Amino acid sequence: MSGILAALTTDHRRAVRIAESAQAAEGVLTLERFRAWFAERRREDASRVERIPLDELDRWRTDPATGDIAHESGRFFAVTGLSAEVAGAAVPAWTQPILLQPEIGILGILAKEIDGVLHFLMQAKNEPGNPDGVEISPTVQATRSNYTRVHRGAPVPYLDYFRDTRRHHVIADVLQSEQGSWFFQKRNRNIIVETTDEVEPLEGFAWLTLGQLHRLLAGDTVVNMDARTVLSCLPFSGVGLSSSHAFPGQEFRQSVLRSYSEEFAGLHDIGGILSWITETRSRHEVAARRVPLRDAELWHRRDGTIEHESGLFFRVIGVRVESGHREVSRWDQPLVEPIGVGVNAFLVKRVDGVLHALVHAGVQPGFRDVLELGPTVRCTPGNYAWLPAAARPPFLDEVLSAPPERIRFASVLSEEGGRFRDARNRYMIIETDAGHAPDPGPDYRWLTLHQLVGLLRHSHYVSVEARSLVACLHSLVSRPD
Amino acid sequence: MSGILAALTTDHRRAVRIAESAQAAEGVLTLERFRAWFAERRREDASRVERIPLDELDRWRTDPATGDIAHESGRFFAVTGLSAEVAGAAVPAWTQPILLQPEIGILGILAKEIDGVLHFLMQAKNEPGNPDGVEISPTVQATRSNYTRVHRGAPVPYLDYFRDTRRHHVIADVLQSEQGSWFFQKRNRNIIVETTDEVEPLEGFAWLTLGQLHRLLAGDTVVNMDARTVLSCLPFSGVGLSSSHAFPGQEFRQSVLRSYSEEFAGLHDIGGILSWITETRSRHEVAARRVPLRDAELWHRRDGTIEHESGLFFRVIGVRVESGHREVSRWDQPLVEPIGVGVNAFLVKRVDGVLHALVHAGVQPGFRDVLELGPTVRCTPGNYAWLPAAARPPFLDEVLSAPPERIRFASVLSEEGGRFRDARNRYMIIETDAGHAPDPGPDYRWLTLHQLVGLLRHSHYVSVEARSLVACLHSLVSRPD
Repeated sequence: MSGILAALTTDHRRAVRIAESAQAAEGVLTLERFRAWFAERRREDASRVERIPLDELDRWRTDPATGDIAHESGRFFAVTGLSAEVAGAAVPAWTQPILLQPEIGILGILAKEIDGVLHFLMQAKNEPGNPDGVEISPTVQATRSNYTRVHRGAPVPYLDYFRDTRRHHVIADVLQSEQGSWFFQKRNRNIIVETTDEVEPLEGFAWLTLGQLHRLLAGDTVVNMDARTVLSCLPFSGVGLSSSHAFPGQEFRQSVLRSYSEEFAGLHDIGGILSWITETRSRHEVAARRVPLRDAELWHRRDGTIEHESGLFFRVIGVRVESGHREVSRWDQPLVEPIGVGVNAFLVKRVDGVLHALVHAGVQPGFRDVLELGPTVRCTPGNYAWLPAAARPPFLDEVLSAPPERIRFASVLSEEGGRFRDARNRYMIIETDAGHAPDPGPDYRWLTLHQLVGLLRHSHYVSVEARSLVACLHSLVSRPD
Repeated sequence: MSGILAALTTDHRRAVRIAESAQAAEGVLTLERFRAWFAERRREDASRVERIPLDELDRWRTDPATGDIAHESGRFFAVTGLSAEVAGAAVPAWTQPILLQPEIGILGILAKEIDGVLHFLMQAKNEPGNPDGVEISPTVQATRSNYTRVHRGAPVPYLDYFRDTRRHHVIADVLQSEQGSWFFQKRNRNIIVETTDEVEPLEGFAWLTLGQLHRLLAGDTVVNMDARTVLSCLPFSGVGLSSSHAFPGQEFRQSVLRSYSEEFAGLHDIGGILSWITETRSRHEVAARRVPLRDAELWHRRDGTIEHESGLFFRVIGVRVESGHREVSRWDQPLVEPIGVGVNAFLVKRVDGVLHALVHAGVQPGFRDVLELGPTVRCTPGNYAWLPAAARPPFLDEVLSAPPERIRFASVLSEEGGRFRDARNRYMIIETDAGHAPDPGPDYRWLTLHQLVGLLRHSHYVSVEARSLVACLHSLVSRPD
């Protein structure tokens, strides 16, 4: 029996340490000092981003036969075309530009116990597409082209902790997908490694507790997408915590903690959820394949950008970047610029005092495996001007008209600024009544947070938008009702 | 706490019922009577398979532009080309014909408790490519084209148990890949459903216990691939069983039971194994894409078949099938005919009395996610006449020269006869010393059976060849030392 007891003890102890870090409002830096430091990083960031025509991008070539746009090294990423067919959907077939990035990058956060509390080494980093400049990023955020130094830039700091984990303790390590509307089958390695080494934060890096990160997450465009997706993979667990960390009178917060505990059953057991995912993947007939970019109908390249003839959805633009703080200090690249601010929202409800989130098994053409569990609502409301009425997502109007007292979380967060220009979504967690949507339809299920955390140990179950929301859900354990 | 206790009780009770079925050497039919019935089904099977040139296949067309071969309905499957690049491999780039079958089919086994013992409803079924005619198949084995009746054949019996599971109990339900060397990203729904309905076996069906299936699995070409892959997804668990089902003096059998118990720790914990899979998937740079079949270099279509200029690997042939027992009674189709009999083998060893199997994280170009955990050795030895010496798999010579007393399982089993002609592999489980290959290389790991069973709840972790071997490993709990 020693094996299982040892394993339970390790898991339990890790759960307690993560929970304690989530309750730690202060760490080696006070939050106030961190905010001042962060504001200064933003102010002093010297990078400049200038919009230029796609035709003028240095070292990027447009293939005359296909219209695809690729880097002359063949690395980094390319802009190509996608043809999608989704049987029975409101829009059953379309073509579009899509980003192709087959390389697996590393999104890594280094963790370390400092003064008895787990801290996470975060980087203040700018990306050319960020709406407000510097954001809080993982310790390492590097494509394979980056870290194998294709562009002969400076080495990536702290990389070795993630490339050779043997001397350290791996807290999470999983390939996760990114936007299936904009990327073709892209994924990154999401990894959290705990070390006992002495680690001095380099310039631009700081140690934060989870409680501090959770408070920062409440601000608009402060914590970047890469940090959110890695944080969502933390093995949050409430085993034994819902009693030891009681918050009297804070019934909502208590329902979040209970939801992380496998001790509290959800509406569905995990076998039933896996079977439902299998069934939905079997039911949806999706065919998505790469086509030449010039075969993307209704998309036009003119004046150095590519856009849809409606003016909606997104544009592909070119930028010239100058940065004093990056591996290379000047480069050109294409970016995808979405039109309008999107909404990514979870409806949540308490069932027998246990919080459940309503996930949507949503098809996106760039997914490797048909669909992933996404937010209850994921859309850019402005696009429905062009799309058929049947395409309007269920629950959208309910989300947009939620009264303030129902809104448990709301902030505007940016998506990957290395590929997207000013891509912002309003992330919302909205509480509804326990009796709401008891039978929400064949592509929706109410899941506990414990179940989401379990699925997040594996690839291709939880979409990047839902993962951002899971990070936001995590943050609710740090926040009084 | 009632939730977790109820869940443990259900899981535990299911584990006990599966283990009891595995120990049941006799069921509602004696094994002797079943064997007589099965022999009669083989004798009386009226189907005839005739080899015909690909050019003469009725209702199949060769696209003049691409050379691809497809059914005129656009359904079923197609023969197309694949271009694969595997950085750093002994053969770093090649092209080949490959089967394209994007539809998700159902491989379903219906289970039912009869006289207190779990029984499984199996079908005696022939497929055109089967080497020895009728084999034991799942209750339902149907492509989507089959069960949506594209060819207007008879309805598939028992299908509704798997299409609408709500009234029944789902024991397993997961999408699993098939041969990544011959299929492009194909997978099927592997599902086991338990019913309490009264179910009368139709002609050609019989109820068997797991113990009976395990004995039948020891025979050559008796239990078909589809049955094996579904059986491999059974949630075998040894929780509490290794003591309650003690087999005094049978140390090997006991080590198998212990290996199914999470109570006994393995050499690696599951977090470490998931991290290793993530790392191997990140490390291998694989690019595989469909190309026109006529772009498959070194493959030639002549005399109505497609073959490699070496005469090795496989051929694509045409067949004409006549069957009295199928949904439609006459049809033509292409089949892939491998050259030579392959070897799929697990090396296993006992570590502290717990059996471990050596899995190989193996790249195959048709995999959806780079690689899956396969047998220690998976190959067709004859192919190495043509391939570079560096391509010869590690551990192959050890497997081929294993002394009889080390061979814990060996039988020649067929692969999917609906797509492959006379495709046979020798499946072997070979025991080595506890000290063997302690550091087997970066793409190999020693796993317990409990860990394999846990991974089998999810897609794309365990290859079809390894799943056949897992079904064989399951059978060792039924067999005295």
